[in-house]
Amino acid sequence: MNRMKWMFPFLVVCGVLALAFAADNPDFHKEQNGLLRHVVCFAFQENAKPEQVQGVVDAFLDLPNQIPFIVDIEWGTNVSPEGLDKGFTHCFVLTFKSAKDRDAYLPHPAHKEFGKSLSGLIKDVFVLDYWTK
Amino acid sequence: MNRMKWMFPFLVVCGVLALAFAADNPDFHKEQNGLLRHVVCFAFQENAKPEQVQGVVDAFLDLPNQIPFIVDIEWGTNVSPEGLDKGFTHCFVLTFKSAKDRDAYLPHPAHKEFGKSLSGLIKDVFVLDYWTK
Repeated sequence: MNRMKWMFPFLVVCGVLALAFAADNPDFHKEQNGLLRHVVCFAFQENAKPEQVQGVVDAFLDLPNQIPFIVDIEWGTNVSPEGLDKGFTHCFVLTFKSAKDRDAYLPHPAHKEFGKSLSGLIKDVFVLDYWTK
Repeated sequence: MNRMKWMFPFLVVCGVLALAFAADNPDFHKEQNGLLRHVVCFAFQENAKPEQVQGVVDAFLDLPNQIPFIVDIEWGTNVSPEGLDKGFTHCFVLTFKSAKDRDAYLPHPAHKEFGKSLSGLIKDVFVLDYWTK
């Protein structure tokens, strides 16, 4: 059949185009070579009790046990003397290997449940994700 | 001399007190066991040209060459889909081994020079430092 005759060259052209796209797309390289950092900062409500704040920290740090594709979690409380923290006191940096993993984390039931537990305790949230270079 | 007689016990007591203080002071442990992360996020002015933004990135990444006690610098541009970035597009994470090093970095001439070069280009800055645990 005439249609079959064109199938092989057509697939070759598709393959070449896909490779060219991947080589030219910076996101592709980042996915291959870098790590995706997910920076999350919290400002707590003034009336949040220390044990409630600790509960949020503990619950956040427990997420990698429920969501194994969080490959790392690092956190700490603000000790900057510069006064440029905009009221944020807690910083958590999660690491993913791919945007796919980050995208699976965001709607994950364990993450959603954690989000619900913040209700009434959190005054403000700052989130910024970046690829390490 | 009577004074000399008390010197040895006095020094022993001083040593024991110093060790007890160190063991009880969480900052001591952090300085010994953790790293100090210095998270800096920038929002650029709308009229900042791409080459000016790149100049800021290049200058920031060059700081460890001038300030060797910056033990690591990692950076990237925001790729979060969550819309909680408050307009910040660039994130830099510097690492220090001690608060002393961070405190020497802040007023360092190379850092001051870098700060001056941001004038008119930066709309907002967010800074939060934390000890890794």
